[in-house]
Amino acid sequence: RKKIQIYQYIVLKWALALLIGLGTGLVGFFNNISVENIAGFKLLLTTDLMSRHKYYKAFAALAGCNIVLAASAAILCAYIAPAAAGSGIPEVKAYLNGVDAHSILAPSTLFVKIFGSILGVSAGFVVGKEGPMVHTGACIASLLGQGGSRKYHLTWKWLKYFKNDRDRRDLITCGAAAGVAAAFRAPVGGVLFALEEAASWWRSALLWRTFFTTAVVAMVLRAFIQYCWTGNCGLFGQGGLIMYDVSSAKETYSGFDLLAVILLGIIGGIFGSLYNYLVDKVIRTYSIINEKGAPFKILLVVTISLLTSCCSYGLPWLAKCTPCPTNLEVSCPTVGGSGNYKSFQCPSGYYNDLASLFLNTNDDAIRNLFSTSTEKEFHISSLFIFLASVYCLGIITYGIAIPSGLFIPVILAGACYGRLVGRLFESFSKLDTGLFALLGAASFLGGTMRMTVSLCVILLELTNDLLLLPLVMLVLLISKTVADNFNKGVYDQIVKLKGLPYMEAHAEPYMRHLVASDVVSGPLVTFSGIEKVGNILHALRTTAHNGFPVIDEPPFSDAPELCGLVLRSHLLVLLKGKNFSRDRVLSGVEILQRFSAFDFAKAGLGKGVKLEDLDIQEEEMEMYIDLHPITNSSPYTVVETMSLAKAAILFRQIGLRHMCVVPKSQGRPPIVGILTRHDFMPEHVLGLYPHMNPHK
Amino acid sequence: RKKIQIYQYIVLKWALALLIGLGTGLVGFFNNISVENIAGFKLLLTTDLMSRHKYYKAFAALAGCNIVLAASAAILCAYIAPAAAGSGIPEVKAYLNGVDAHSILAPSTLFVKIFGSILGVSAGFVVGKEGPMVHTGACIASLLGQGGSRKYHLTWKWLKYFKNDRDRRDLITCGAAAGVAAAFRAPVGGVLFALEEAASWWRSALLWRTFFTTAVVAMVLRAFIQYCWTGNCGLFGQGGLIMYDVSSAKETYSGFDLLAVILLGIIGGIFGSLYNYLVDKVIRTYSIINEKGAPFKILLVVTISLLTSCCSYGLPWLAKCTPCPTNLEVSCPTVGGSGNYKSFQCPSGYYNDLASLFLNTNDDAIRNLFSTSTEKEFHISSLFIFLASVYCLGIITYGIAIPSGLFIPVILAGACYGRLVGRLFESFSKLDTGLFALLGAASFLGGTMRMTVSLCVILLELTNDLLLLPLVMLVLLISKTVADNFNKGVYDQIVKLKGLPYMEAHAEPYMRHLVASDVVSGPLVTFSGIEKVGNILHALRTTAHNGFPVIDEPPFSDAPELCGLVLRSHLLVLLKGKNFSRDRVLSGVEILQRFSAFDFAKAGLGKGVKLEDLDIQEEEMEMYIDLHPITNSSPYTVVETMSLAKAAILFRQIGLRHMCVVPKSQGRPPIVGILTRHDFMPEHVLGLYPHMNPHK
Repeated sequence: RKKIQIYQYIVLKWALALLIGLGTGLVGFFNNISVENIAGFKLLLTTDLMSRHKYYKAFAALAGCNIVLAASAAILCAYIAPAAAGSGIPEVKAYLNGVDAHSILAPSTLFVKIFGSILGVSAGFVVGKEGPMVHTGACIASLLGQGGSRKYHLTWKWLKYFKNDRDRRDLITCGAAAGVAAAFRAPVGGVLFALEEAASWWRSALLWRTFFTTAVVAMVLRAFIQYCWTGNCGLFGQGGLIMYDVSSAKETYSGFDLLAVILLGIIGGIFGSLYNYLVDKVIRTYSIINEKGAPFKILLVVTISLLTSCCSYGLPWLAKCTPCPTNLEVSCPTVGGSGNYKSFQCPSGYYNDLASLFLNTNDDAIRNLFSTSTEKEFHISSLFIFLASVYCLGIITYGIAIPSGLFIPVILAGACYGRLVGRLFESFSKLDTGLFALLGAASFLGGTMRMTVSLCVILLELTNDLLLLPLVMLVLLISKTVADNFNKGVYDQIVKLKGLPYMEAHAEPYMRHLVASDVVSGPLVTFSGIEKVGNILHALRTTAHNGFPVIDEPPFSDAPELCGLVLRSHLLVLLKGKNFSRDRVLSGVEILQRFSAFDFAKAGLGKGVKLEDLDIQEEEMEMYIDLHPITNSSPYTVVETMSLAKAAILFRQIGLRHMCVVPKSQGRPPIVGILTRHDFMPEHVLGLYPHMNPHK
Repeated sequence: RKKIQIYQYIVLKWALALLIGLGTGLVGFFNNISVENIAGFKLLLTTDLMSRHKYYKAFAALAGCNIVLAASAAILCAYIAPAAAGSGIPEVKAYLNGVDAHSILAPSTLFVKIFGSILGVSAGFVVGKEGPMVHTGACIASLLGQGGSRKYHLTWKWLKYFKNDRDRRDLITCGAAAGVAAAFRAPVGGVLFALEEAASWWRSALLWRTFFTTAVVAMVLRAFIQYCWTGNCGLFGQGGLIMYDVSSAKETYSGFDLLAVILLGIIGGIFGSLYNYLVDKVIRTYSIINEKGAPFKILLVVTISLLTSCCSYGLPWLAKCTPCPTNLEVSCPTVGGSGNYKSFQCPSGYYNDLASLFLNTNDDAIRNLFSTSTEKEFHISSLFIFLASVYCLGIITYGIAIPSGLFIPVILAGACYGRLVGRLFESFSKLDTGLFALLGAASFLGGTMRMTVSLCVILLELTNDLLLLPLVMLVLLISKTVADNFNKGVYDQIVKLKGLPYMEAHAEPYMRHLVASDVVSGPLVTFSGIEKVGNILHALRTTAHNGFPVIDEPPFSDAPELCGLVLRSHLLVLLKGKNFSRDRVLSGVEILQRFSAFDFAKAGLGKGVKLEDLDIQEEEMEMYIDLHPITNSSPYTVVETMSLAKAAILFRQIGLRHMCVVPKSQGRPPIVGILTRHDFMPEHVLGLYPHMNPHK
């Protein structure tokens, strides 16, 4: 490359990171402000009707708003972009592992993800916005990297440098980090999330770029939040860059507290893994319903929405009215929007503690649960009811056709669980119940997500409480360890459930007993260095392979030898150029001068040359074409007797799509087969060798 | 492996992580308490003499203490373990990249590192303890992993599982993380440091283990600090888990402040890279002196110590006495130990601001510089004098024969620089000067160390100020970007200066124009599958190779083919077993039954079987031995025409020590050569092809 091109490339790389940060930050803020206003309006309406004792009308208003919002989200999701349903983190994770699934990062998915998430969260579902924000960030990154959309004639010449897997993956990693940063206002947590959970390959240069992106997100958010403090954002809350500040609490704890925290971690881990187990079962059930068509999807969403409304309006009636505490700085019962003390059906001077949790946005409910120096605010019975219902609602909500994050449901249930434990132990314990709630959230998160450092930093950035760090680390370690004994992390489960061919970083134990040639499957299709056009077309039509080995034969070499690997996409571009010759001769590199190097660059999904685009005449079928110019002459190879475990590590670490298996002894055809990602999947290997012990 | 062995392995892995955490935490605390007491005693003595106007005696006491402490450190370093000099981070980094340098992690190095660091820091040098703590953590990990020291008969049978490169590297990564965690009381920062700067290979399982280790460190430190608050630790200060808490300051900043911060970042980056440049020059100069022998090393240390003493005692005389502020909670001038207001030569009611910086431990000086709501405490002139002297002292101190960390000097100079900038801008700026000091420290750190996320989190954990995060990120990004235009990070520079063959994660651009066989060098020594003992001995004696290809020849195969790779260490063990036979026959696997699998495990440095240990008789030289049982039959191979850049990536990503280059065409010997780490070094490649443009 020339110097000017390298310069363009570097400038563009950073400019795109900046744009991803700006875009994701803006979307994050827009999401926040929309949710606060829509949900705030809904809650104000309900509270207002209740204060005039119109209880049935109040329920109708609440349930009606919820159903309309939920149905709109479901319609968007079912008809425009089915790929936008769910969290989106598993899909992004699979993409960054090298799985190019269709429409995961399409513009329509982005659109539905943004608006569907706003509608879904406003509809009062027990869902969060972080998963969708991660997906949104990834979509924005993908769209920017592709130069907008060729369909809508938005493309830019400089972007040609980004038409390859690696740069695209880098951008999407930045997008995922920016998504977490925007959802939790946690820039460092975002970087670590991308590193620990999302990305499969990592370079320190990338660390720096994601760091820059999330710094931009943080600055965008801070600017807008500062603007909103002047009161121009409607019902936008008081939250700053720290969403749930608990730093006012005193961190004193004794040996007994440590024991309590260990117990909390163990039980949290069990509940976390149970959550994963149940979510898995529910998704499997729902997918049967969802497959029946869009109307069924919408019906399911409406049903769950109605159930959620019933819970959040019905269950608070079970709670008794509590007299307001006397030494308060805030008003009790709360007037207007969010707040700790909802009056619900209670007379003045009293509040309903369950309503303070149920009739609030999820964010405000978490804030209430994390609130410190308010030990007696919630009754043990209320916390128990809320925990049970939120835990169940969270499980049955994931899998319906709306964009739905998993973090907030888990934090909500975990915080309630922690506060409950804190209440139970309060006579022995010095630790604030608000901090117990934080530790409870950590234990559930550790038990479901199975991340460590990134969760720790996200919680730190959410709550601004550095002195509690040792306890948070302890809880995360315990709950993850406990939960790992039962099943895998929730995102890994979903990846597997969706059947995405995800390559694990380590090789499975049974692979040590096999060699590379054991799993080579399917008929091998090879081309000669100079091949007949008809043969190529036939191979392209009859197989779905994306890579073909090219073999040089006499007279072009002394003996048949492996020349390299040619990609389907490059073959299609070459055939489209129609540089055929009548004889078997080397055409040399001048053939490439008719193409620009960027013709061979990886196009966006579904945008490359297709087989149907080719228009080859009958007489051209018998002509020859020289494949050498487009052959990758140094493909990664392994000898057939190479241990399969070692081959898998090579494949995964280098990030390959094709690996050539070559024979060990001489005098045989120069290639034994080609290994792709699918050949390493446990299903494939254990299918070939059913008597193998998968754990040995 | 059997189930019980896997169980032993897992238990041991976590037990070792626990022990590393405990050990490093203990050493960190011991270091802290020793330094505070020794330096505190010295400073109290000086202050006491000064208060009685015995100025010359006071200087003599200060300089005398310093020289005695410095000389002891130098003697330890020069005579017992020269490898303990300097930071230790470059060495640990190189080790984790796969460079087994001698004595880097030996028990003697550990001993000198611990006590040398205490003496050096107490002696008032402008050095820190974090680099040495990282090295200490790594040494503790290495020692534990080797099962203590065989020399001192401390070894444990279970530890046999850890006698391989990967497990050893994992342990040392944990140790490095624990070191940072102990030095800065920053558990998450420690994990990120290990990830971003120290480790070359990373798996998410390792993330979790390091996280556990640093959590243990944090809990150990917290327990001891809590104990010290009862007043049983002598002169131990008041610091808690947060070393320099600035969270009391208000984070308000305007657009102007943003501009000031950007300017601060740019200038900080320039000064940071200048620091690296000068440190490099100084080390080169010193190494000439140091090579002359131990007495010269000690002389150099004493000279620098005297110079430091002169600065810290002499320069405060330049400052005028400042009247004490009136609305203070602390006493002014300070009575006794550390504190913001040193009286020095001033009458009562006055303090000397330069003495508050110079006549303090480095930790306390940094705390004073970071202190918030004390805008006018330090004069601009005093800050300028301190900045200039600390910057220069920091540069001329690194490279002398004492354990010396680079973080503290850089933070000290950076904080002073930031506070100076804050004072200069104070009439326009809303930002507290203490926060300016923090940003200044970030800019210098970014400019010298070139880390991003880990520095950010370390600073966060040092200062407990989450709301300043966006500004810290901005400053780090700017200063790193600016500095990267001039030279490399300081640790990379030192690695290069020491001539350690460090493999970069990316391939150099010129490697794309070469193929693997271009850099194969030296005569290739191969063995037959069944080889004559004499030939093996001859090869072991005449070459320094650590790996030899084994080739099967007729009659054991149809044509010569590559059987695999055999390691020097395994050959030595096999030869020591003396299972020779008179004829060329396959001995089969039963030969291995005479050995335990752990005989072939990688021994500690310098502990394996040596060539001199072998006692082969003349008649045995003509006998044969079957190498098949110890041959690694699936070595990673590349074809000779593989691009060198791709081969380098393969070599680095998989973490190889040997890579076999095989011929492309048939009918030639089955191996072309072996590539090792040295063959990829720019010096070697550019030495072979001097006309190559290294940047293209």
